[in-house]
Amino acid sequence: MLLCMCAHIKVIYSYFWPMAIIVQKFGGTSVADIDRIKHVATIVKRELDAGNQVAVVVSAMSGKTNELVGWAEAVSPLQSPESLKEYDSIVSSGEQVTSGLLALQLQSIGIKARSWLGWQVGLETSEIHGNARIENINATLLKESMASGEVAVIAGFQGVTPENRIATLGRGGSDTSAVALAAALEAERCDIYTDVDGIYTTDPRLVPKARKLRKVAYEEMLEMASLGAKVLQIRSVEMAMKHNVRVQVRSSFDDKDGSLLVSEEEAVERRLVTGVTYSRNEAQITVKNVPDIPGIAAKIFRPITAQEINVDMIVQNMSAASKHTDLTFTVPRADADRAVTAIESAKAEIVFGEVIVDKAVAKVSVVGVGMRSHAGLAQKMFETLAAKQINIIVITTSEIKVSVLIQEEYTELALRALHTAYELDAAPSVAS
Amino acid sequence: MLLCMCAHIKVIYSYFWPMAIIVQKFGGTSVADIDRIKHVATIVKRELDAGNQVAVVVSAMSGKTNELVGWAEAVSPLQSPESLKEYDSIVSSGEQVTSGLLALQLQSIGIKARSWLGWQVGLETSEIHGNARIENINATLLKESMASGEVAVIAGFQGVTPENRIATLGRGGSDTSAVALAAALEAERCDIYTDVDGIYTTDPRLVPKARKLRKVAYEEMLEMASLGAKVLQIRSVEMAMKHNVRVQVRSSFDDKDGSLLVSEEEAVERRLVTGVTYSRNEAQITVKNVPDIPGIAAKIFRPITAQEINVDMIVQNMSAASKHTDLTFTVPRADADRAVTAIESAKAEIVFGEVIVDKAVAKVSVVGVGMRSHAGLAQKMFETLAAKQINIIVITTSEIKVSVLIQEEYTELALRALHTAYELDAAPSVAS
Repeated sequence: MLLCMCAHIKVIYSYFWPMAIIVQKFGGTSVADIDRIKHVATIVKRELDAGNQVAVVVSAMSGKTNELVGWAEAVSPLQSPESLKEYDSIVSSGEQVTSGLLALQLQSIGIKARSWLGWQVGLETSEIHGNARIENINATLLKESMASGEVAVIAGFQGVTPENRIATLGRGGSDTSAVALAAALEAERCDIYTDVDGIYTTDPRLVPKARKLRKVAYEEMLEMASLGAKVLQIRSVEMAMKHNVRVQVRSSFDDKDGSLLVSEEEAVERRLVTGVTYSRNEAQITVKNVPDIPGIAAKIFRPITAQEINVDMIVQNMSAASKHTDLTFTVPRADADRAVTAIESAKAEIVFGEVIVDKAVAKVSVVGVGMRSHAGLAQKMFETLAAKQINIIVITTSEIKVSVLIQEEYTELALRALHTAYELDAAPSVAS
Repeated sequence: MLLCMCAHIKVIYSYFWPMAIIVQKFGGTSVADIDRIKHVATIVKRELDAGNQVAVVVSAMSGKTNELVGWAEAVSPLQSPESLKEYDSIVSSGEQVTSGLLALQLQSIGIKARSWLGWQVGLETSEIHGNARIENINATLLKESMASGEVAVIAGFQGVTPENRIATLGRGGSDTSAVALAAALEAERCDIYTDVDGIYTTDPRLVPKARKLRKVAYEEMLEMASLGAKVLQIRSVEMAMKHNVRVQVRSSFDDKDGSLLVSEEEAVERRLVTGVTYSRNEAQITVKNVPDIPGIAAKIFRPITAQEINVDMIVQNMSAASKHTDLTFTVPRADADRAVTAIESAKAEIVFGEVIVDKAVAKVSVVGVGMRSHAGLAQKMFETLAAKQINIIVITTSEIKVSVLIQEEYTELALRALHTAYELDAAPSVAS
């Protein structure tokens, strides 16, 4: 009898051992209600039926986190470290509910499954409550459970601090949970299921010819933050890049293939430019007639930085004749008024003519790892915009990106022109 | 400097050390929304201002647990042990939210406070998920925190199993959490704040002359389950009795004194009967014409017990002449039809005439520790009911209780008559 048992165990092991591990992450709209949760269970089952071990990371039902945050804000300004500990305990409850419900639903359709909360799954974080970083994942128990054939349903967005308090990873943190777990489990792939079906060459709502990308390099994704932020938390992309986790973005609402985030080597698809992005979250500030002397930029930015406002694009105008110049830069639109107030309050020290704010500007960027090796790609951008009579206010570049600031009303025109110029347009006869 | 620090620490200790510990528990209606939670914080503050250390146990916002249970039931029949583990993780999230919110609100009015979940506070339970028992409370960290001047806000209803899973204590389990913590903390008193202002001699909705009791013995409270169930979970009363915890039931909606549960010695207030209770949750089943032979009762109850239906009052009618008798008993009204089906299905084995069900019955009980020492108290009950022409169907007695089954339509009449007969009526001129 004992021998018989051992033989049985061996069979189980040989069956489960060589399976690939897939991590799946479902966002708030994918688990928005009981029907959606039931649908998610069928997606999990499909991956199991394909012969894989599956770990699932879930967000809270859409709207739930906002409700919890609203309650917390109703009783506290949430500024002290102690208050953020309570905030974390409150808001993490949303994922606790969905992880339990999905585990229940999986059990109901005959699949072995259990939920794991941050403190149960050994997801250890820093003590920066409200925006903690993952320090370590002690996945021993998780691996054992999965090796025994159990689907792991993990509450996203949460971990536990050395003090044994719940910490959350910041908004969108479930993506980071999923990628970190995929790294810890050495997963074959991390599938991020969301309400869009992939990463596009540009915003399909503005550019009808936008095309879904099959593969995107991590570096490109980071530069495409303004597109990606709607799809993936930036920190999760950084983590995927660091640990070389293959991340697939796809929709839980249809069966279409998604987009795969991979290393630069794997991403190359004979293209120079990967996408064209835009951001309307910009305001341009011009400080007129400042003395053109060393250290003046530092003087102007000091009061702004003191307000924790990020300065993005900067240009200092030429001033050959006079000893004065104009300094133009951008800040997030929501911070523009505070930035002006900060500069005005330092007027005695800086000395300047006037401060002009323009909130009707947009930043348009062309992104692609191909820029590393191909000169002339920036030039094509300038020429394309010039041909459409679009004035460029400021230019900034990085290794794989060129950004320009333009008047906001030209955003769609600029995007469409650039999309065509860089040969990104979808072939008209092929469905995206 | 170091010496100075030490002196400071000594002062703190001498200040906090001799304080009494009060445990306060707030039910779902007391934390139903942000305004109620803010009000609860003022009640906590009042106890602190009186010079006490305070631990607070909270339920979920009223309605929240039902919502969570509804979701769990929508995806699972909740019958397997694995599914009940998920159920517990889901439903315990309600108390997680309120404990965090109350801690935040206390911090906002300048009171040091932190929340504790079951797994953080060392509340260890059995592995009977959905209805776990508290096995142990490792309160070392909790005591340290409270000694440092921090109010402990503890999520009720939940603990952690040896397997590191969340377990809940069954409906109303927050009362048990509070009493168990009061025992572990050797608290001076455990105040259960609810939406009624105390324990009454009978249901004030049916008997206008009902009077609030100042003190009630644990044993009496257990017997008054049908009244008490609306106020206190029975298991919490058992635990209070076992550990001799003084429990006060009072309202969070007004400042009136509540009722105190104490030991029998402390409870005596020169009264023989403490209360008159009733239950409409009864159905009477009569099995006619069964053979009057040894073992027949066992035969009839076997199929009912197999259905896990509780049989309460039993009477076997006399049968001097014939060799047949009638057996009458009560079961919970909701189980009556299943009980009849169970008996009918065993008809071949039992042999009987017919089964008659009457759901229009009520159980009325007179409770008091004075019954131990005073004969004639039961006789007064029978005479009082007879004077009102109320027929008694079945009688059962315990050491401190006499119960009778009557036709349901006489419930109010019986309660009022007994309340007067046992001299429980409130003096007309005194407000309750």
